[in-house]
Amino acid sequence: MTETIWLVVSLVAGTISVGVAIGLYVWVNKQDPGTEQAQKVAAWIRQGAISYLKKLYMALLLVAVVLAVIIAIVFGIQKNAVYGIEIAGAFMAGAILSAVAGYMGMTVAVAANVRSATAANKGLNPAFNVAFKAGSVMGLAMVGIAVIGMSVIYLLFRQPQIVLGFSFGASVLALLAKAGGGIYTKTADIAADLVGKVEVGIPEDDPRNPAVIADNVGDNVGDVAGMGADIFDSYVASAVAVMLLGVGMASSGESEAKYIVLPLILCTLGIVASLIGLQLVRVGKDGKPGRALNGGTVITCVLFGVMAVAVILLGGYSIGVLWATLAGLTTGVVIGFTSDFFTGDDRPPVVETARVSSSGAAITIITGFSYGLISIVPSVIGIVAATLISYYLAEASGISGVYGVGISAVGMLSVSGMIVSSDAYGPIVDNARGIAEMAGMPENVIETADILDAAGNTAKAITKGFAISAAALTVLALFVAFAGEMEDAGQVLKLSLLDPMVIAGIFLGAATPPLFSALTMLSVTRNAFDMIEEVRRQFARDPGILAGTSEPDYETCVSLAAQGALTSLIGPAFLAVLLPLIIGFLMGPETLGAFLGGAIFTGIIFALLMANAGGLWDNAKKYIESGHFGGKGSDSHKASVVGDTVGDPFKDTAGPSLNTLITVMSLVSSLFAPIIAAVSLFGK
Amino acid sequence: MTETIWLVVSLVAGTISVGVAIGLYVWVNKQDPGTEQAQKVAAWIRQGAISYLKKLYMALLLVAVVLAVIIAIVFGIQKNAVYGIEIAGAFMAGAILSAVAGYMGMTVAVAANVRSATAANKGLNPAFNVAFKAGSVMGLAMVGIAVIGMSVIYLLFRQPQIVLGFSFGASVLALLAKAGGGIYTKTADIAADLVGKVEVGIPEDDPRNPAVIADNVGDNVGDVAGMGADIFDSYVASAVAVMLLGVGMASSGESEAKYIVLPLILCTLGIVASLIGLQLVRVGKDGKPGRALNGGTVITCVLFGVMAVAVILLGGYSIGVLWATLAGLTTGVVIGFTSDFFTGDDRPPVVETARVSSSGAAITIITGFSYGLISIVPSVIGIVAATLISYYLAEASGISGVYGVGISAVGMLSVSGMIVSSDAYGPIVDNARGIAEMAGMPENVIETADILDAAGNTAKAITKGFAISAAALTVLALFVAFAGEMEDAGQVLKLSLLDPMVIAGIFLGAATPPLFSALTMLSVTRNAFDMIEEVRRQFARDPGILAGTSEPDYETCVSLAAQGALTSLIGPAFLAVLLPLIIGFLMGPETLGAFLGGAIFTGIIFALLMANAGGLWDNAKKYIESGHFGGKGSDSHKASVVGDTVGDPFKDTAGPSLNTLITVMSLVSSLFAPIIAAVSLFGK
Repeated sequence: MTETIWLVVSLVAGTISVGVAIGLYVWVNKQDPGTEQAQKVAAWIRQGAISYLKKLYMALLLVAVVLAVIIAIVFGIQKNAVYGIEIAGAFMAGAILSAVAGYMGMTVAVAANVRSATAANKGLNPAFNVAFKAGSVMGLAMVGIAVIGMSVIYLLFRQPQIVLGFSFGASVLALLAKAGGGIYTKTADIAADLVGKVEVGIPEDDPRNPAVIADNVGDNVGDVAGMGADIFDSYVASAVAVMLLGVGMASSGESEAKYIVLPLILCTLGIVASLIGLQLVRVGKDGKPGRALNGGTVITCVLFGVMAVAVILLGGYSIGVLWATLAGLTTGVVIGFTSDFFTGDDRPPVVETARVSSSGAAITIITGFSYGLISIVPSVIGIVAATLISYYLAEASGISGVYGVGISAVGMLSVSGMIVSSDAYGPIVDNARGIAEMAGMPENVIETADILDAAGNTAKAITKGFAISAAALTVLALFVAFAGEMEDAGQVLKLSLLDPMVIAGIFLGAATPPLFSALTMLSVTRNAFDMIEEVRRQFARDPGILAGTSEPDYETCVSLAAQGALTSLIGPAFLAVLLPLIIGFLMGPETLGAFLGGAIFTGIIFALLMANAGGLWDNAKKYIESGHFGGKGSDSHKASVVGDTVGDPFKDTAGPSLNTLITVMSLVSSLFAPIIAAVSLFGK
Repeated sequence: MTETIWLVVSLVAGTISVGVAIGLYVWVNKQDPGTEQAQKVAAWIRQGAISYLKKLYMALLLVAVVLAVIIAIVFGIQKNAVYGIEIAGAFMAGAILSAVAGYMGMTVAVAANVRSATAANKGLNPAFNVAFKAGSVMGLAMVGIAVIGMSVIYLLFRQPQIVLGFSFGASVLALLAKAGGGIYTKTADIAADLVGKVEVGIPEDDPRNPAVIADNVGDNVGDVAGMGADIFDSYVASAVAVMLLGVGMASSGESEAKYIVLPLILCTLGIVASLIGLQLVRVGKDGKPGRALNGGTVITCVLFGVMAVAVILLGGYSIGVLWATLAGLTTGVVIGFTSDFFTGDDRPPVVETARVSSSGAAITIITGFSYGLISIVPSVIGIVAATLISYYLAEASGISGVYGVGISAVGMLSVSGMIVSSDAYGPIVDNARGIAEMAGMPENVIETADILDAAGNTAKAITKGFAISAAALTVLALFVAFAGEMEDAGQVLKLSLLDPMVIAGIFLGAATPPLFSALTMLSVTRNAFDMIEEVRRQFARDPGILAGTSEPDYETCVSLAAQGALTSLIGPAFLAVLLPLIIGFLMGPETLGAFLGGAIFTGIIFALLMANAGGLWDNAKKYIESGHFGGKGSDSHKASVVGDTVGDPFKDTAGPSLNTLITVMSLVSSLFAPIIAAVSLFGK
């Protein structure tokens, strides 16, 4: 009974969140869209972004329908036709609702960029306001839609396994959006830089460069749609893992659903905290937008913590749940802020990498890569600490330790509404700066846009650390949930490290994230080459382009990037969805479990390495550009540009996609666990 | 009885091997040492190398004495004083005998370089002969001394645990030699290149460069002494792991030592096969030294295989042992040759990386790094296949599967005599080329030296693949032996992936190899900066150096590199020896086991990545230098030089040291297992 009330409350909170998102959406679109020239540039970006999203969603629809049919048939045979259709329907709902959230976030982002640039004429605060409110659309739409989806499916079917289907759908979309967007954005970025800055010597965001619109589109499809889908994916997956683990946990006299519904309750509290926190984000008189964003995050976390304490204690939950929630929340914030140590503007690793750049690009690479390797250690210690604290404090208070680990992931992700809002702000102001440049807006606008942009970079670095840690705890919970699903299906997994099939599974799993990273990065360079060829062809065909008298053909570059990114997804998507099934069917449930474990361990390690090394190189370049160690044009600067270019696919393509990879692999294994267990039992 | 005869046979074979090594040593030293100028250059290199070795061995002595005293006290208390002294003595013997083998190999290498260059005047064959015979000194001395040491200790004490002490001693020396040599060689290489080629524009190996002698010394201390110590370490560790696993395996009616002594028997057969194989290495009329080296390896493997079949079948061993031996041997050869696919001169990954270099250094780095990531996959599949085949075929024939995995490592490493000989040949001919250049020898000598050098590079790449795979199987066997030691001490390890302490252990272990790599690589760049400063100072103080009228001060650079390398060893050595003990004592045996597992998995993955990416960049540069894609001096070439410089510490410092890291961590854990088990039981 109480649980049903909470489910309705979740539905209401989710609906309010989506309502506020729609309100902000309308508000942003009402703002001054600026000069004709600015609107023209913005229209190119908008059309490019929407045309890419349409292609992506068509590809998704194809993949999703095929997978849904397979799911319906397989589960129809295994259980019954209705159950098969229910799971397949939940899967489609997950994919489609995640796409809707992404679409809302993207369309408002490409409307807000030009409006934020225009507002910058009036000062920092109005410009910040437009960009941040647009970012909030993404954050609020995402958490609202996710909570509505999960609540409705659970209210209808009362089975966590069907919510697992929803999560898998969201995850498949996230994989395509994140990896595809990552490939798209860096293809365009690298091509625009290499042919523009290096070959013909025109500045960044120069409208004469045919690849410049594709580059700006890339910021949106990679950072807004991609990152949003990634967090949506972790957000839902962590809640589902806990729902699965919560089955049968209630003691006698308690409602059966008590522990199943708890993650939805925490998500609801997180939505309320985010709604309040977002209202309190204000740039103070000193004009520091970075501080405003961080302040909003801290306030949201505190609010959420206070509400969680009240609800958990009043709701009669074990105290261990509270410790787990707070451990996750604290770890998320701490890891986010410490990842700032390795990539922050004027921190020792960045300054040291900038300093050694005077000896050439090779030293820049070796030094940045080494700090990236070191940066793995504190985050891993944080993840280990959160795991052990939440596990043992849950056990000490008499509930399942693994449930505690899952709750810590939910605790961390519950404030996603706020985190995603800050993160989506970044690419919007980045685009605003680009539009200001291309539309020839006055110098003070560009300066304001620069200040807004710098704040966005810090938020972005924190979000990445947060996303990786949250994914780590989520997949650990999913991993145990997978073992639980196998047990329910009659296969008790021992997963002993001394078993050769387990060693084999771990090794094969551990090799998968590096392979996945390599495939996405090679796609970036291959597609960038195609785009460079196209740009060279345009310059050769019409000298008026460089002279500034005729307009380049932005369209071809935009569709080259889109086509290349989508084609390149085939290999990585195959790895993510099919490889676990192949391992499971051929080598059995034990090896599959070990395979997941191996993929999780190296997935997290490579994700941290790539995200942090990439962020560090980026900021080392910016540090030099701000006048240190010779400044722009010096040999140090040239070396740091090489570092930045290497770091681009590290931090924006390969690294962040790894979160999604390991989540998809864990979800597909959990979903198909009954089938694999049955076939494997049959084979024995 | 039969076992004692075999132990005596091993002793005799080991002695013959060392005897032949001494004979070749004398022969090489009798060859024509060349012109006065050549002898002068060679003397600088010799003095530098020997002075570094002396410093390294003094540091080793200090570390070894401290560790020996701790071992004697700890095991004296745990068991009795005599046992403590026996283990400590075996430990010292392992460290010292490994050092003796390294010293022999090094002194003959620095005598052979100038003699090989001088012989090149007479043609390819005489030059090859000198270099290869000198390389054989290292190979034969190493396997001979290792087998003598293990046989004597086992004959005296009849306890594999004491041979484990010997192995740990060899491993500590290997760690210092490999990591120290790796830091030394790349410090000097990078400094010499950056200040010589880039800053003042003089060619490689130009005698006006004060860092040039340190660079040549580095080839010897890194590649001869370091790689030799590394393989010595794996060779002994694999035999010891099998000896530990062999305890209690004999069935009733069989001698108790039957399965304990088998690894020594296989090593003995490998020595005999290598002694014969080495005689058959001949450069044919077509003058292809690479083919001669590979031919020798294949012949040695076939000979060993035939002898192993005979001895195992006649000796009444289970047939599973035979399959395991052959699986290991085959996998070693196959992985070695396939690693050639990713790094080979004119193979697609190298050519593709060379091709994209026209778009700048960043693309070279991304592409080479991506292929390095992909190269992990086939080797991992090979390791998994060898593990599963040897395990299950051993089980199927009624013996312990894990024993089979250990035997497959021994089977792979049994031909080390031949492998190390081919490998040590490489730096000798590399040095010969350097001396020919510096001593102003005629053009035909340099051309001959180039041909010899190219063959050395392929051998080196194969050896690296071989060393990593062998280390992988060895540490897997050691890992299980560790669990066995814990079990003997009353701690049965479950090591379930579902246990949070195991997950914590794996994560912490998995973060250790990246941290270790970062520390060694940052040491390289830091030390290279010191050396660059010194070279600049010398150029500024005396303009006669660049004019060629006064001689630079090579000595200071040589001792800077040595001092820097030794100081930099402190952190990595701490990680390797103390971290497992800290984890074991604080977090218990289960977590320590998981920690080792995590370190093994990422250790192998990063070792493969770094070795192969580094080799690939090196050969992409050479491919461009041989006239492709613009050739020397083109933009492609400049980009490929950046790739090569990044690859240097990857492939010669960080990557190969990881083998030794995981071996040392596994050995120290196994050795201290009874103590950790006791203290942990006490703590419970």
